[in-house]
Amino acid sequence: MSLPDEFHEIAKRVNNWGRWGRDDELGTLNLITDEAVREAVRTVRSGLRVPLALDLKQDGVQSGLIPGRVNPLHVMVQVNQELFGPGTVATSDDAVTLGLQAGTHWDALTHASHSGRLYNGRPADSITAHGRAAFSGIHTVRHLVGRGVLLDVAAAKGVERLPGDHAVTPEDLDEAAEFGGVAVGAGDLVLVRTGQVQVYLAGDRHGYGYPSPGLSLRTPEWFHARDVAAVANDTLTFEIFPPEIENLWLPVHALDLVEMGMLQGQNWNLEKLSTACAQERRYAFLLAATPEPFVGGTGSPVAPVAVL
Amino acid sequence: MSLPDEFHEIAKRVNNWGRWGRDDELGTLNLITDEAVREAVRTVRSGLRVPLALDLKQDGVQSGLIPGRVNPLHVMVQVNQELFGPGTVATSDDAVTLGLQAGTHWDALTHASHSGRLYNGRPADSITAHGRAAFSGIHTVRHLVGRGVLLDVAAAKGVERLPGDHAVTPEDLDEAAEFGGVAVGAGDLVLVRTGQVQVYLAGDRHGYGYPSPGLSLRTPEWFHARDVAAVANDTLTFEIFPPEIENLWLPVHALDLVEMGMLQGQNWNLEKLSTACAQERRYAFLLAATPEPFVGGTGSPVAPVAVL
Amino acid sequence: MSLPDEFHEIAKRVNNWGRWGRDDELGTLNLITDEAVREAVRTVRSGLRVPLALDLKQDGVQSGLIPGRVNPLHVMVQVNQELFGPGTVATSDDAVTLGLQAGTHWDALTHASHSGRLYNGRPADSITAHGRAAFSGIHTVRHLVGRGVLLDVAAAKGVERLPGDHAVTPEDLDEAAEFGGVAVGAGDLVLVRTGQVQVYLAGDRHGYGYPSPGLSLRTPEWFHARDVAAVANDTLTFEIFPPEIENLWLPVHALDLVEMGMLQGQNWNLEKLSTACAQERRYAFLLAATPEPFVGGTGSPVAPVAVL
Amino acid sequence: MSLPDEFHEIAKRVNNWGRWGRDDELGTLNLITDEAVREAVRTVRSGLRVPLALDLKQDGVQSGLIPGRVNPLHVMVQVNQELFGPGTVATSDDAVTLGLQAGTHWDALTHASHSGRLYNGRPADSITAHGRAAFSGIHTVRHLVGRGVLLDVAAAKGVERLPGDHAVTPEDLDEAAEFGGVAVGAGDLVLVRTGQVQVYLAGDRHGYGYPSPGLSLRTPEWFHARDVAAVANDTLTFEIFPPEIENLWLPVHALDLVEMGMLQGQNWNLEKLSTACAQERRYAFLLAATPEPFVGGTGSPVAPVAVL
Repeated sequence: MSLPDEFHEIAKRVNNWGRWGRDDELGTLNLITDEAVREAVRTVRSGLRVPLALDLKQDGVQSGLIPGRVNPLHVMVQVNQELFGPGTVATSDDAVTLGLQAGTHWDALTHASHSGRLYNGRPADSITAHGRAAFSGIHTVRHLVGRGVLLDVAAAKGVERLPGDHAVTPEDLDEAAEFGGVAVGAGDLVLVRTGQVQVYLAGDRHGYGYPSPGLSLRTPEWFHARDVAAVANDTLTFEIFPPEIENLWLPVHALDLVEMGMLQGQNWNLEKLSTACAQERRYAFLLAATPEPFVGGTGSPVAPVAVL
Repeated sequence: MSLPDEFHEIAKRVNNWGRWGRDDELGTLNLITDEAVREAVRTVRSGLRVPLALDLKQDGVQSGLIPGRVNPLHVMVQVNQELFGPGTVATSDDAVTLGLQAGTHWDALTHASHSGRLYNGRPADSITAHGRAAFSGIHTVRHLVGRGVLLDVAAAKGVERLPGDHAVTPEDLDEAAEFGGVAVGAGDLVLVRTGQVQVYLAGDRHGYGYPSPGLSLRTPEWFHARDVAAVANDTLTFEIFPPEIENLWLPVHALDLVEMGMLQGQNWNLEKLSTACAQERRYAFLLAATPEPFVGGTGSPVAPVAVL
Repeated sequence: MSLPDEFHEIAKRVNNWGRWGRDDELGTLNLITDEAVREAVRTVRSGLRVPLALDLKQDGVQSGLIPGRVNPLHVMVQVNQELFGPGTVATSDDAVTLGLQAGTHWDALTHASHSGRLYNGRPADSITAHGRAAFSGIHTVRHLVGRGVLLDVAAAKGVERLPGDHAVTPEDLDEAAEFGGVAVGAGDLVLVRTGQVQVYLAGDRHGYGYPSPGLSLRTPEWFHARDVAAVANDTLTFEIFPPEIENLWLPVHALDLVEMGMLQGQNWNLEKLSTACAQERRYAFLLAATPEPFVGGTGSPVAPVAVL
Repeated sequence: MSLPDEFHEIAKRVNNWGRWGRDDELGTLNLITDEAVREAVRTVRSGLRVPLALDLKQDGVQSGLIPGRVNPLHVMVQVNQELFGPGTVATSDDAVTLGLQAGTHWDALTHASHSGRLYNGRPADSITAHGRAAFSGIHTVRHLVGRGVLLDVAAAKGVERLPGDHAVTPEDLDEAAEFGGVAVGAGDLVLVRTGQVQVYLAGDRHGYGYPSPGLSLRTPEWFHARDVAAVANDTLTFEIFPPEIENLWLPVHALDLVEMGMLQGQNWNLEKLSTACAQERRYAFLLAATPEPFVGGTGSPVAPVAVL
């Protein structure tokens, strides 16, 4: 099996290999300049902070379908332990085992490969079990702060959430931008709301994952044209699942991560942000969403906060 | 053994139990108001972002001395796996096991107890192995963004780093504030630099942990008087270790976390921030440092970013 | 809620506290004497070895119902790593995270408590998150080798497996002993076959766990009368589940582990052993089933082998 | 760098590829026949059981030198949890994270490769991060029970333990066999005692690992000539470390695991067995040492028991 021509044509149009040098590991994050950050800061009016992470817990979003992507197992290793003798100050410590992509997370650029290649043309086999990702590991993203823009597709369409077979198209993104009165520009961090996370919040993990609305194969060009820095949404798979073209699985992952070198975020809870943006009638804000620096990680949990 | 009178006297003076209601779980984080966030945003000039987290990796800061506080074991669970058949888009996934206090982290208020009590007078035994922390778990801190202030004690004293037996006193903090031309105020997030993290960065884990400069027993009153929201530094133990008074172990933990209800951060890398603040001649900035929402966690890794 | 009188009456009759001294941690394992082992060895005729453990893997028997009892997450930490340079001998290493009771396992005596007490009258709170089980941790079982006896209840009744609501009674055990032509005696390790593990082997994890046939509340007296050393079976819960008496949950656990001090084994695969015993027309054999010595563990995976 | 001629010459002489068929995954374990097991059983006289595993605990034998080979992190996930309401029977559960080669363990045949090959000529890259070991994973060893023979090299030489630079030679093995009055034969499980584990038991983890006495490059031929089924000893590295020939690292691993297809065991505690064999004046016994069936594992913890 090989990827269809349609895929390769889009791939050519959105490809960023070499754009920031042959050694670049950051891709479109290069577009978040100091000036873009100053712009982002200027969007803040009320100071309201809206958290976008789901709780990290054993009954998290993973249902067991993705092998090895385990929900957090959180355990206490010390409980009120008086380390220095009875009657002294006591401390509690804990430990956790989790899949780096288990909850609200960023995919690193190395999370996907196709045709033997990673972003910037690096060989896929530079990821190994022991060496981990030799390039573009999530720890190379030392900071991720910029202007966030909410494209509330569900709200723009006047529905609570998009149906499971809805591929979010470039036209949908335009519609949501217009709804929010916001123009997406270079270095922006775009959050696309489908409302799908409500299914998980209502207790249905399996229904949350599949079938799921998500980004269409046609959206990478839209993001590329606007020089978007990163995109996150409120679904398990990011892109529509099952896919639009039969047997063309995960094409958006391949286009965004491998060809464009653009970070993707998944399982973001955009419900409260939807409400807050509607109330404040503003869909651009400061977004702080730095991943944890797991060396060589192909992803990381993140606790994003929008500051309005 | 019981805690000495000196401890109890300070405890009374800095106690915040009931100040934000009997059910409060956030302590001094309540002091970060929307207005404080707007103020924080106004400090941004250049847009420069300085990351403050140490890499999360197996040869991290933990040396094995603190039982159960394990460095991250990062493993691949999928490497370029073509989940949907040969020639399709491939993905890589990873998982990690780590102590929540292993790297750059925040202590939750529940990390310490004394005399059977947690912050706000709750019984210490509300932390259990299965129920985890029933109150004030780290997940209750949904966002942590505010004005950061660097008190560069080492730089103010003209030394590269403080010696291992140096207890950072209120006078040292005043000196560093004056050096930085900054007044610490309500809702501030104070970063105290000792330079000790250089020892770890130079490869000496054991020397990093012990003996270590750190905050004096007398500093909680200084933070309390200024209504500081949270304090972090660049050491393993936060407070001077071994302690100032024989057999009075971890008094600062007890005063900050239990009595004041003030979050503490440890293992923050303040070296680049020290350079950046010196270059820009500004010691106040926007700080984004939201912990990961591990439900019931008594701490969390954090990837703090200062925006100058 | 408190435990009913019926429970307490049986408890009195099977109680072994103090029988092997106040400091005893091993309970009925004391009954496996050197002589019993010599007897066990004499049962061997063919030398055929039958393994009784289920594979340890991520899609193991746990379905998520028992919080924290996670199936094994097995990961590679080195893959053909040439540690000493290119062209040298390469090695592969792996690591695993698992619940100690996740697969084929022994419960330690400390796995259950009731009315605040563990086996031999020790306080339940001697198990702590940091100290682990201070007494009778699974590591105190340094060896577990003896005479095994298969009571093939399903075969004796001429069925493939017992229905989900079948409580295995003392009469069933008598019937199976007669079917096997074997007399259960002091120090024996009794394996009770229901056939329920077939449900898991056929791919139905949820059906395997619930509803499940299992041992009746009345069986502890039968084991006690014969001075059995340990009992294992081929179900998730060991005892019939849901229980025989409404709201009396896990009474067999309390009677076997707490009162008698008798180890229980669960998730043992007795299918091949059933076939082998039928073929050799012998239901007694040498059984080697030593748990892994996890210090303070309240259970352990085990890879039992019957030698016929 | 490539392996020297001397290595390849020995490799030819001990090679067992194809001996048990091209699809064989078990290697010399095939030599443990039913008859060999009957023989093993006949060695039992006293019924004394001697455990050979070290405790599994966080301060185990690993010192951090071997990346990813982490000591067990044992944690409680339930402590006396009354799952069905207050006053009901309570249960405790635990979980563990550990390197499969961290404690007393067997290496699977897949633990080593050289020149791109595993045992029986299989390609080394059949081990992958997601597929794990496709052949000869430790779970294929369903049972490991047979005749154990202690070759007490230290006792034969009249020393407490061998010095760190002592390579155990074929002559040493002959001497120990004569000392024990035992002839090593086909299907035997040979335990070679150096006494090195005393260093660990005395609290010196680093000294235990390096420098360490261990098997000489010349021993594989000795084992091969006698058709030994498996060999274990009481050191971290199994073979002498650093090695006998400069820059020829881990040659015994390559010869035993890859060429012969013979399992190796490490970190076995042979101290009590040494005493027991001396007292009973017998150095052959029944050995039960079945690994845990981790699917695809390149090793497994084991709790071996010798029955004298």
